[in-house]
Amino acid sequence: MANNNSATSKAQLRLASLSAQLDTTAPRDSVTEILETSLPPVHLHADALSVLLDGKDQTWRKWMFEQLKHPLFEYQYNVTKEELVTRNQERTRHLAKLGFRPTWTEPKVNIDRNKFIQIQDALSYFDNGLSTMHGAHFGLYSGSIRELGSEALQNKWLPLADSFEVPGCFALTELGHGSNPRGIETEAHWDVKEGCYIINTPNTTAQKYWIGAAAETAFMSVVWAQLYIPHPTDPSHPPSHKGIHAFLIPIRDLSTRSPSPGVTIRNCGSKSGLNGVDNGRLWFDHVKVPRHMCLDKYGGVNEQGVYESFFGDNNDQRYGLTRRQFGAKQVGELETLIMDYKLHQRRLYPLLAQTYAQHFAARAIARLRDTEKSDLKLLKQFHVISSGLKSLHTWHLLDTLQATREACGGQGLKSSNRIGQMKADCDVMATYEGDNQVMLITVAKGCINDYKPTRIPTLANFTSQHFSDSTLLSPKFQLDLFQHHIHASAHRLHAAIDLSRAQAKAQGTPNIGLDNILDTHSALSQEFARAVLEHWILSEFIAQETLSAATTTSATGTSPLTLMRQLHALWKLDMDQNMIRRRYLDEPVQERIRNLVGGLLHRVHENITPLVDAFGVPDHLLGPIAHDWVQANVADSEDI
Amino acid sequence: MANNNSATSKAQLRLASLSAQLDTTAPRDSVTEILETSLPPVHLHADALSVLLDGKDQTWRKWMFEQLKHPLFEYQYNVTKEELVTRNQERTRHLAKLGFRPTWTEPKVNIDRNKFIQIQDALSYFDNGLSTMHGAHFGLYSGSIRELGSEALQNKWLPLADSFEVPGCFALTELGHGSNPRGIETEAHWDVKEGCYIINTPNTTAQKYWIGAAAETAFMSVVWAQLYIPHPTDPSHPPSHKGIHAFLIPIRDLSTRSPSPGVTIRNCGSKSGLNGVDNGRLWFDHVKVPRHMCLDKYGGVNEQGVYESFFGDNNDQRYGLTRRQFGAKQVGELETLIMDYKLHQRRLYPLLAQTYAQHFAARAIARLRDTEKSDLKLLKQFHVISSGLKSLHTWHLLDTLQATREACGGQGLKSSNRIGQMKADCDVMATYEGDNQVMLITVAKGCINDYKPTRIPTLANFTSQHFSDSTLLSPKFQLDLFQHHIHASAHRLHAAIDLSRAQAKAQGTPNIGLDNILDTHSALSQEFARAVLEHWILSEFIAQETLSAATTTSATGTSPLTLMRQLHALWKLDMDQNMIRRRYLDEPVQERIRNLVGGLLHRVHENITPLVDAFGVPDHLLGPIAHDWVQANVADSEDI
Repeated sequence: MANNNSATSKAQLRLASLSAQLDTTAPRDSVTEILETSLPPVHLHADALSVLLDGKDQTWRKWMFEQLKHPLFEYQYNVTKEELVTRNQERTRHLAKLGFRPTWTEPKVNIDRNKFIQIQDALSYFDNGLSTMHGAHFGLYSGSIRELGSEALQNKWLPLADSFEVPGCFALTELGHGSNPRGIETEAHWDVKEGCYIINTPNTTAQKYWIGAAAETAFMSVVWAQLYIPHPTDPSHPPSHKGIHAFLIPIRDLSTRSPSPGVTIRNCGSKSGLNGVDNGRLWFDHVKVPRHMCLDKYGGVNEQGVYESFFGDNNDQRYGLTRRQFGAKQVGELETLIMDYKLHQRRLYPLLAQTYAQHFAARAIARLRDTEKSDLKLLKQFHVISSGLKSLHTWHLLDTLQATREACGGQGLKSSNRIGQMKADCDVMATYEGDNQVMLITVAKGCINDYKPTRIPTLANFTSQHFSDSTLLSPKFQLDLFQHHIHASAHRLHAAIDLSRAQAKAQGTPNIGLDNILDTHSALSQEFARAVLEHWILSEFIAQETLSAATTTSATGTSPLTLMRQLHALWKLDMDQNMIRRRYLDEPVQERIRNLVGGLLHRVHENITPLVDAFGVPDHLLGPIAHDWVQANVADSEDI
Repeated sequence: MANNNSATSKAQLRLASLSAQLDTTAPRDSVTEILETSLPPVHLHADALSVLLDGKDQTWRKWMFEQLKHPLFEYQYNVTKEELVTRNQERTRHLAKLGFRPTWTEPKVNIDRNKFIQIQDALSYFDNGLSTMHGAHFGLYSGSIRELGSEALQNKWLPLADSFEVPGCFALTELGHGSNPRGIETEAHWDVKEGCYIINTPNTTAQKYWIGAAAETAFMSVVWAQLYIPHPTDPSHPPSHKGIHAFLIPIRDLSTRSPSPGVTIRNCGSKSGLNGVDNGRLWFDHVKVPRHMCLDKYGGVNEQGVYESFFGDNNDQRYGLTRRQFGAKQVGELETLIMDYKLHQRRLYPLLAQTYAQHFAARAIARLRDTEKSDLKLLKQFHVISSGLKSLHTWHLLDTLQATREACGGQGLKSSNRIGQMKADCDVMATYEGDNQVMLITVAKGCINDYKPTRIPTLANFTSQHFSDSTLLSPKFQLDLFQHHIHASAHRLHAAIDLSRAQAKAQGTPNIGLDNILDTHSALSQEFARAVLEHWILSEFIAQETLSAATTTSATGTSPLTLMRQLHALWKLDMDQNMIRRRYLDEPVQERIRNLVGGLLHRVHENITPLVDAFGVPDHLLGPIAHDWVQANVADSEDI
């Protein structure tokens, strides 16, 4: 087969390059293959496969890969964002000279969109900051002029854009309106007397935000605003709203680089990624924009001072841009608080419940550490459970940080909001002191002989019953089911081990090691390990709940620990892949559990702030996102 | 209830702070609560809850939080790692002066481990780089001297450590032996003639690696090595191996800061996180270490020049440290190539198959974009599918980068290996152009009316059958099941919508919006949206597979696209939470599918390099981890 020899030696190099990353010490033998089916071999022509993946033509992608060998494209690490941006400006200028532009200045029919995409594709392998700077300028900025601007504007500005002599940016997003173009608040009012548009930022949330290349690089900006046309005869009549329109506005002086009159420019600050592009913030203080600088191909004020639209009065259909909006929002209407969305509650509150569960598990394992462990069984329990908790806790930490980051949108990426930095700093935990995946296998190895097949109860205990809500919410039911899950998964793992040993014996290699077998059945091993750990966590949580109920004066209603324990356990029953897979409960019971989760989320929502604040993280260690994020983004705040 | 008023206003501020992050435009009304159960209210005393979480005593955690108000602890972003490290050194010196040390120099009984943990806990909220520097010095370095060193060593070095006058580090980990202390290769030979230990780094993989504070900060190091004692009378006899021991070694001159004779120190370079601690690499070239500098509480050479051990000859039991190893590894035995582990194959290859699937989906959606969409149905399909693919593709990208990072262990965090930087740079994609979670809801909204309840086939089509392997692997079966999944999830979503509308009507608010309903049933909405998208992806993959089979000369065996499609589809059937939940297949069939996945992974393994290389990413855009990572880490390579 073509390329197979060279592929093999390359493969060996590649595989060798990974060999010291995991703690993998068990000797291997051929019986690890015993479970494999007799699938036909694979018929692989490497070159033909490349052609298939490439599709019709990837000439420009490959060409750009070659260009990236130029010394300007040596990787830089450990540099400031200003250094990265300066270097990416140099790179973009260099690229502009290479003459591969998607011919913005040529007749439209010649534009090769596929070429542009290939270029962007190749650049993104190198540095997403560079591909963003390149795409914002040559795609969004230049493309807007080309698609929406008059011929005069195109003739003047596109050559300056093609050469990157006059970098531009694309100002749509606002602080208060991330992905909802129709909701933007920046205003453009036609001034009949002056014969120009007046562009204005009415408030802090209307500032243009995350504008790629606006902070340092761009001189021009395509600015999107809500257009208002005054009544032709009656000045007391409210102006007519024409929807969003784009305007070409100089934001910096070409020689001095200082912001144009009425324009305020700030940096979005340090981010947890993409620091290779300078995201900026823009304010417009009644900036006058000449009539011809409106990108008015589909609508604008004509030479007679009358508004004309390609779409007639149906301005809401105006651009494909608006297709990403998610509701029939009117300008000025109050948006819903995000935390009132069930979707948002579902993505965050179960993680909080799990944090409670794992918090008490951490306390319990610390107590076990401090206990005199003369009992060997206790010592073993400590070693096994602490190894396993290391995996579950660090993954939970990373999952929670990621969910939080996404729930905060772009604000979650700002260094000052700390989530991105925490993610980056905590990432190591998933592999240090042992790879998390491997740790779970060691837990399985350490525990499997404690659970003999004979001790497994029958499934019928659960599947045939229809439980009441109060049963489903009870500690006893939840703990019983978690316990049953241990026994059932131990049973399956034992069966797999026995099968592997029997097969090995039949193949004349009876000395197959347990490490080897557990690796072969890694999914079953990890399922069993998780079952042991989740049961341990839940039982410690319930112990703490019982203890606190006994020591505090009880009142009517559910205690917060009970609420968190109920949500934690039912969420696992609803969402844990292995629990679902094993079908311990009838489908109507599973449905009921999901509905109960919905009710519990509602109860959490009613109490969310004290439930979070109880962890006692002081205000000075929280980012602006946890406080007044609008105030943190006013124009006269410091760049952060 | 206590604190409830202040909690509410704080809650309002917090909630408001999130309100502009998502595009959430639908008006809300009270009927969103209709599905909630009549669970009892929650009885929450915020202060009592804090006490419960804190456990017995968190005085020192709170005290340290207060100390972090000092100006030295202002956050710094956009600075080099050298600046961060210098600042953390200043901070650690400052902390050392505050007199809260865990009394390393006092009698052992006075050590308050809980105090130390509280301090570390608080510091980790501030900066994990600082808590690592602090923990490595005061915990690992000082703790080793205290627990293992002689009284003389303690008296001399602990006061200098307590004051941070002489920072130290803890050198256990080696390049080739991440979490496997027993496998380290650094050697210590007892030199009878000189009466000292000779510490040596025998090869590149034996270099001490990731040693916190070694690159810039530390003057002393606790160095772990395999101890060999020569035969007392017969020099031709191989030396006796005594297991791993620790030695206290000056690695820098206290006044000049230059490395001690025979010691080479290099920086681990820029990382994607934790740059606030200076991780270093250490080599020892036959460095002489006096007998008394062995931390020999449990074993070492005595004054008579004879090796003595607390454990007798059973050195393998020596330290709790060794408990984290995972197999019975002998020194010098070849370790298994990581990619030969089934666990490793399971964590990476299904992601590769999904990458193939989504690659062709991306190509297909690009073709649809370039198609003249005069047909409104086609236009809608393009908008809906492209919105949904945005979510699935960007999440898949982030998941793959994370899995790759973890599979590469610590090397995955080195900036030069690029994975960490890519993760950081791509993170934004999960929320820009629309939050991924919300995008899936819009897909559901866009498609739900295309799937009427009447068109749903019965479940019996699948559940009662026992399929052959070749059926399970076939495009027809897989596509049929994916299609069935769409109809079944549409059916459930329709039922939920109908129920919500009926309830709203009964409650006198019949005008409940679809956005509102889909949010209330966000899990069902997303399940339906994913079903539509996964079917679309699979059908495009199969189309490409069919096309390529027709255009290439066929041979015996499976084509690579067929292999990737089979793995992709069966992996979904084995692991997709929703597919599992709905129990389309009998349990024996599910078992069979998992076994087939095992066989497919084996076939992928045999062809892994060409399957990856086919994407055509050139060598100069890959980090050292993809090439010769040992060569990239030799002592005379540049710091990276």
